[in-house]
Amino acid sequence: MKRDPPHPVVHVEYPDWVDSVVDWKEAYPTDEERMRLAIAVARANVERATGGPFGAAIFEAPSGRLVAVGMNSVVRLNNCALHGEMMAFMMAQQRVGSFTLNAPHLPVHELFTSCEPCAMCLGATLWSGVQRVVYGAARQDASRLHFEEGPVFPESYQYLEERGIRIVRNGLRDEARAVLEMYRARGGKIYNG
Amino acid sequence: MKRDPPHPVVHVEYPDWVDSVVDWKEAYPTDEERMRLAIAVARANVERATGGPFGAAIFEAPSGRLVAVGMNSVVRLNNCALHGEMMAFMMAQQRVGSFTLNAPHLPVHELFTSCEPCAMCLGATLWSGVQRVVYGAARQDASRLHFEEGPVFPESYQYLEERGIRIVRNGLRDEARAVLEMYRARGGKIYNG
Repeated sequence: MKRDPPHPVVHVEYPDWVDSVVDWKEAYPTDEERMRLAIAVARANVERATGGPFGAAIFEAPSGRLVAVGMNSVVRLNNCALHGEMMAFMMAQQRVGSFTLNAPHLPVHELFTSCEPCAMCLGATLWSGVQRVVYGAARQDASRLHFEEGPVFPESYQYLEERGIRIVRNGLRDEARAVLEMYRARGGKIYNG
Repeated sequence: MKRDPPHPVVHVEYPDWVDSVVDWKEAYPTDEERMRLAIAVARANVERATGGPFGAAIFEAPSGRLVAVGMNSVVRLNNCALHGEMMAFMMAQQRVGSFTLNAPHLPVHELFTSCEPCAMCLGATLWSGVQRVVYGAARQDASRLHFEEGPVFPESYQYLEERGIRIVRNGLRDEARAVLEMYRARGGKIYNG
């Protein structure tokens, strides 16, 4: 039984500026360099007007090799799930060919994100297989722009930590916050206010 | 600056059995018919061995018109985010061309899901724009198979309800649970245990 129109197909792709902002060949040995990349992706997303002021990156922890980035693509791709972190998880898993980054043959992976994850992204963090999360701006920095973060509680973080995921807060918070402010100054869309 | 290999592209598509299970033309006037479709999708996903025992469907509430279905596709598509509910949200938004199903020009939408949403899917529910969620099997039914549900608390539901989303629990729970049991009996993979 066929319907018309045909079934939708969801394509998740980077915006075309990604290679001008992301150096895929370089290693990112320190937390600071890793966070700076996540923030650079967030900033480019605002400057190029391709989405909300949020960026993320996934690295192999020991080597600092970059596996994937993600930038908020909710409005660009008409998809409420495409927060920066979600896109980074999907792209990383596509690249390694595994639904978890914690597969036995893989090195330890970690997520850097320019802002504290929302409820959806925090849940996905658990399924993603990353072992460590570092975030920049805090929930209240996003809330000041009227971005919603959803039902995240102290117990939510505790739940992840009890399952071996380390959480590091407020990495380069001022730089991350500056991207949020830039978005506000430009009158950027608050798509989930 | 180009890297090799080229950037991954994530494609989210239905498995090829979808039209043999889903009647896209029919209207689904009652909650029971809507839930039965979500469960049928879950069951087919197990029978055809295309994923975990979870299915979802999104309807226009007033007319009962089917907008999208979703089936767990985590293993099939190497993507930890592709729970049944997430796929349903993405497909529905792609179809209507909006990042929210709560856009002013759209009728009220609702989600039917064969099992209580995990933390990620509950967060996404808030961003999706659906105004009502009906679920079948409960968290503890999934936990018995060692499926994790993540950090979901009573306050999580309260958070959604305070924002106007109605939650209806345990619709056709026994039928929904039977699909979970069928998956267990077949030795299905527990991909997030």
